Amino acid sequence: MTGNLLVGQSGGPTSVINASLAGVYKTAKELGISTVYGMRFGIEGFIKGKYIDMSDVVKNDLDLELLKRTPSSFLGSCRYKLANHTDNADDYEVIFKRLAELDIKYVLYIGGNDSMDTIKKLSAYGSSIGSDIRFVGVPKTIDNDLAATDHTPGFGSAAKYIASSVKEIIRDSSVYDIKSVTVVEIMGRNAGWLTAASALSESDNSKAPDLIYLPEKSFDRERFLARVDTLVKERGNVIVAVSEGVKNPDGSYVCDGLAGTKGVDIFGHTMLGGTALTLSGVIGSELGYKSRGIVLSTLQRCASHIMSATDAAEAFAAGASAVRRAIAGESGIMITFERLSDTPYLMKTGAEDINRIANEERLVPEDWILPDGELKTDEFKRYIAPLIEGEMYPIIANGVPQHLVID
Amino acid sequence: MTGNLLVGQSGGPTSVINASLAGVYKTAKELGISTVYGMRFGIEGFIKGKYIDMSDVVKNDLDLELLKRTPSSFLGSCRYKLANHTDNADDYEVIFKRLAELDIKYVLYIGGNDSMDTIKKLSAYGSSIGSDIRFVGVPKTIDNDLAATDHTPGFGSAAKYIASSVKEIIRDSSVYDIKSVTVVEIMGRNAGWLTAASALSESDNSKAPDLIYLPEKSFDRERFLARVDTLVKERGNVIVAVSEGVKNPDGSYVCDGLAGTKGVDIFGHTMLGGTALTLSGVIGSELGYKSRGIVLSTLQRCASHIMSATDAAEAFAAGASAVRRAIAGESGIMITFERLSDTPYLMKTGAEDINRIANEERLVPEDWILPDGELKTDEFKRYIAPLIEGEMYPIIANGVPQHLVID
Repeated sequence: MTGNLLVGQSGGPTSVINASLAGVYKTAKELGISTVYGMRFGIEGFIKGKYIDMSDVVKNDLDLELLKRTPSSFLGSCRYKLANHTDNADDYEVIFKRLAELDIKYVLYIGGNDSMDTIKKLSAYGSSIGSDIRFVGVPKTIDNDLAATDHTPGFGSAAKYIASSVKEIIRDSSVYDIKSVTVVEIMGRNAGWLTAASALSESDNSKAPDLIYLPEKSFDRERFLARVDTLVKERGNVIVAVSEGVKNPDGSYVCDGLAGTKGVDIFGHTMLGGTALTLSGVIGSELGYKSRGIVLSTLQRCASHIMSATDAAEAFAAGASAVRRAIAGESGIMITFERLSDTPYLMKTGAEDINRIANEERLVPEDWILPDGELKTDEFKRYIAPLIEGEMYPIIANGVPQHLVID
Repeated sequence: MTGNLLVGQSGGPTSVINASLAGVYKTAKELGISTVYGMRFGIEGFIKGKYIDMSDVVKNDLDLELLKRTPSSFLGSCRYKLANHTDNADDYEVIFKRLAELDIKYVLYIGGNDSMDTIKKLSAYGSSIGSDIRFVGVPKTIDNDLAATDHTPGFGSAAKYIASSVKEIIRDSSVYDIKSVTVVEIMGRNAGWLTAASALSESDNSKAPDLIYLPEKSFDRERFLARVDTLVKERGNVIVAVSEGVKNPDGSYVCDGLAGTKGVDIFGHTMLGGTALTLSGVIGSELGYKSRGIVLSTLQRCASHIMSATDAAEAFAAGASAVRRAIAGESGIMITFERLSDTPYLMKTGAEDINRIANEERLVPEDWILPDGELKTDEFKRYIAPLIEGEMYPIIANGVPQHLVID
């Protein structure tokens, strides 16, 4: 095989982003690619000359198995938006010079919306200069909000973590013989997929959250309080799952009401947060019920100790498919999933023009949501149930899951 | 065997409190106790006449295995403090009348400090009226703060969850090539055992938190900021594990500084919380570093999806031992663990006079902590390492751990 392969990871991490990386690496080696390079800290790091030879860090089959089970981006990540090359080609010149130096013919980028924008722009620049380098995107996001694919790798494991944790919180909330309300805050600024996953806590030995609110529709505080009041009177203890991103009718976030609780993320952006605390405070002050707020936080995207085997296998398959399509000559695409059947669950990989994906956002369908943002669970559960099936157990030493890391 | 057995659960739940209940039930049946009754919602529920026949809900071996893996108190719990019988014997008269009606000769109570106070008082009242009913306490608390025992059931699983989650957060925090500080808040108002468990994230593929602060000593804000500053300059990204209960030199909680973030727990008590957000805010405003706060929250005590097999086995053994000692005639005791050896790890159950345990609190030893509350990890790790060993995997259906519940 002529030419080497370069792979990078970008955006927020997931539990299975490295399963995709493992799929890329293993398939590339099997198909005779001589060197698989990994960008350190995404395209931003590559521009600065940071990259590794993957065979220096994945030395054997155990390393590959550890890699699949390592959460967060093994290669490091970035949030870096390339300029349009027609405005400023500086980055592109650096990147393509380095690609030539390393004899790279295939560039794969594992990420979400912003990362697909990078693939789109690199591909466009490549075309403009007549480069034969192929650019393929591998989808990754817990948010499940990428267009043109049935779902995204990372979502199933996050959903499994959320369903299991919410079920445990429901147990925890049921131990006292008193009326109470527990509000659980789940990730998702605009798309309610992850919050909806809390519905999977339901089985013959657990209820689902009594109320589930998605950010796709505006939140009606008075109606919410009336619903909570009725349910507490009926059921004693009530569980509410709510997206961090639920918004008031005026478009402000529900959590904006709570002064002093805003943190900033690692980039200094104001974080959401406080939605659960805001709502539990209101329930206490306006309805007089005992109430508490719980925030699931970062572990939703990095809990490797409860991964979906389906998700991990599909993440690996997405990486493998990207390599095969790149070698077959395809470029300017993202790998997609196409569902053939729910029962039995049958899925195949496909591909879509990157221009149809980058910067698009796929929300929970309108007709799965009640007018005030409450989830209708039946159709959603049919859709999501297969994605959390199967256990990918961690490799454990000294009682703690082990990971593969770059020294 | 003459006489029946009554068992109850009290106080905050743990991941393995029902493994102790399984140990009680199975051992009692094996030793010929005809009926094992379970108090619903602890002694408070029993006073109101709420109890079940355990054989109605644990019908076969699968139920017993599910019970061991069900987090939170299967029977329900309470936080109810009996009056001294010399002040007011009303509750005692109700309780002992009911015990006589049900022909109960053995009363076992699974819980922490407050629950041991209940055993102490019931035992004292029993003695005062010449009752031959035996009262035995089974230790349970994630906080590991009971006196007279090497450790408590529940602690090992919480520690395993914390070590694994903190390791995943360390991974999550390392993906970007920027300086940042992540502050992780861990349960423990007065005792730092759980926060110290974050040190177990360390291995050849992970660092431990760079700083670990326990509540046993007062927190020095200026020194903390200086330490963080130095470490960020040395290491780029810094992880701080901090107990929710860390206090300023004047005795106020560090989290008291943050207005508007106080929630109330399910009993309406003001909750701690906000320590991580307070400290990450200070790091941002005074040092200018990007910083975020993460609260591990309720899952520390109810995550059944990553239990310590050692902890689960010991919890079962504590329940079993309580039954055997009660039948052998012992009363007014709590089951204890006595460590025979670290390597290999050897433990045996013992028993201690309940009067030496109730209302005592066991903190992390003085000489394991630096003057400003930072943990010295070597001795602590020797102590805690065996307690998180081994995996007790959940029984999973449809991708989610299954539990045993009372309809």
